[in-house]
Amino acid sequence: VKIALDALGADNSPDAEIAGAKLALESLPEIQQLLLVGDEDRVRRECEKQGLSDPRIEFVHAAETVTMDESALKAVRLKKKSSINIAADLVKNGDAGAIVSAGNTGAVVAASRLKIRCLEGVKMPGIVAPLPNRHAPCNLLDAGANVNAEALHLLHYAIMGSVYAERIQGIENPVVGLMSVGEEDEKGTNLTKAAFEVLKNAPINFRGNVEGTDLFESKLNVVICDGFVGNVVLKTCEGTAKFLMSQIKEAAMSSLTGKIGGALLKPALKPLKYKMSAESVGGSPLLGINGICIISHGSSNGPAIANAIRVAADAIRREVNPLIQEKIASLG
Amino acid sequence: VKIALDALGADNSPDAEIAGAKLALESLPEIQQLLLVGDEDRVRRECEKQGLSDPRIEFVHAAETVTMDESALKAVRLKKKSSINIAADLVKNGDAGAIVSAGNTGAVVAASRLKIRCLEGVKMPGIVAPLPNRHAPCNLLDAGANVNAEALHLLHYAIMGSVYAERIQGIENPVVGLMSVGEEDEKGTNLTKAAFEVLKNAPINFRGNVEGTDLFESKLNVVICDGFVGNVVLKTCEGTAKFLMSQIKEAAMSSLTGKIGGALLKPALKPLKYKMSAESVGGSPLLGINGICIISHGSSNGPAIANAIRVAADAIRREVNPLIQEKIASLG
Repeated sequence: VKIALDALGADNSPDAEIAGAKLALESLPEIQQLLLVGDEDRVRRECEKQGLSDPRIEFVHAAETVTMDESALKAVRLKKKSSINIAADLVKNGDAGAIVSAGNTGAVVAASRLKIRCLEGVKMPGIVAPLPNRHAPCNLLDAGANVNAEALHLLHYAIMGSVYAERIQGIENPVVGLMSVGEEDEKGTNLTKAAFEVLKNAPINFRGNVEGTDLFESKLNVVICDGFVGNVVLKTCEGTAKFLMSQIKEAAMSSLTGKIGGALLKPALKPLKYKMSAESVGGSPLLGINGICIISHGSSNGPAIANAIRVAADAIRREVNPLIQEKIASLG
Repeated sequence: VKIALDALGADNSPDAEIAGAKLALESLPEIQQLLLVGDEDRVRRECEKQGLSDPRIEFVHAAETVTMDESALKAVRLKKKSSINIAADLVKNGDAGAIVSAGNTGAVVAASRLKIRCLEGVKMPGIVAPLPNRHAPCNLLDAGANVNAEALHLLHYAIMGSVYAERIQGIENPVVGLMSVGEEDEKGTNLTKAAFEVLKNAPINFRGNVEGTDLFESKLNVVICDGFVGNVVLKTCEGTAKFLMSQIKEAAMSSLTGKIGGALLKPALKPLKYKMSAESVGGSPLLGINGICIISHGSSNGPAIANAIRVAADAIRREVNPLIQEKIASLG
């Protein structure tokens, strides 16, 4: 297990990445090599500061970084020496099996698609966003890799998401839903109707159309949609949760009993806060790439990065990609 | 101001509708006639029970009802005597200026489109979903009338939503955003990119692309998207809020201090609960129809129905449709 970690991706980089690397190396003996990609001086200094020295670490210098608001394609094509490009090159050349980055999502997707390329038979990769469903993680994909999707892409997402849920989250026979505007079979757009016809005969546990209200409460492990809808859904969840929490806080602060109530309630909400955080999720895999690619939230801290590295190591060890490839090939 | 009220739409019909009619007639002297459409015996009995007698009421018998899970088009074509169809006929024939229904949304949309038809120049009607944004209502449209939209439809939604925000909600120069997957102009699908080009030259206050995270916190009054995305967004908001509230409740119930905290906090949350409820929203207008059509939530109670009737009366009095028609015509 060899992993390339983009050390210059997170908002708080390289501190967050080095803290994550340290935690991961302490707890994951299966890691044989962790390649820290970034400005070598800065990364070495941060390692010294945090007391991280491990024979499994290798420093790979990258002279440039991609910022969060840069155009993805431009960044990949023009910033050849960026940490994202060099990390993707390491996977492309077989020097690492996985890339982990908390950097510009679009640039990580573009570098992975252009350099590492798709698994044989897969036309478009998809980002998995694991949501905290009441029963088990509910994996929404595609969460934004590909905004103009076709029915075949959605079929591949369904297969890839099922393999991921089974191999990484240990969910047996994961239930797959197709995001639509009603549960009836005939509901939806031209795209979802075409996808429905393909999905109902696919080698997956297909439940049919589902709705936005199902994401958190229904027994669903994989929810399929195009990358535009997935990204809008993900950001709508984020916006709704943030708004609601801030409104509750304001309501609590508006009276003395509210303040006391809020203060008493706060400790009980800690596990919920963790469950909803980037830290517990760790990262979103980009599936369909000929290598493992885990994209972490820009706001990731050390534990979040360590979680992402763990997922990357699991995906390599549990052979997620060979199984995806086998299932895609068997579609004929 | 003459309004046709579908008395058999709500989950709790005709109780909710009659309670709403009573409240509306008490507070809205501008209503000249309120046509109660439904099984006349049942509706009359419910009026007697609730002590509602007003010379402005007229009973219009409808022998059939459309259930919530019926196919919309079939219901409209086959159940000629349903309360939805008859209410739509009243508007079509000029006997009423507005229809208010808490029934099957698809059937109300289909009946309105097929019978009342679109305003001249408008190709597709759109449903407005008013969201409780921090600053002012944020009107999401289309929330599900038309799932295969074109750029021209989105342009019309932007104009119709702006007129609605201005005339009904009193918002000056409403800010319009286009739902997309990033704020940069070039982000999005083929549809949103084409819509962006049309919207930037339209006679509206266009802010550009917005994201799901903007719905509740940004200064936005109208957010435009196709009916598939809008419906998914609306149900995702609903699902996220419901899940979060239930998780908070569970967390509070898991310890004694949590229980006390929750009990103390509860009264402070009442206004928030109201703000998020169907009752405060009242109804979602279907804009672009040659008449006023307000669709209420199936779970509506009396005050929610009364709110919907008030919005319908306002839309007639404040000439929402003539202004929409004028603006659409001026596009050339």
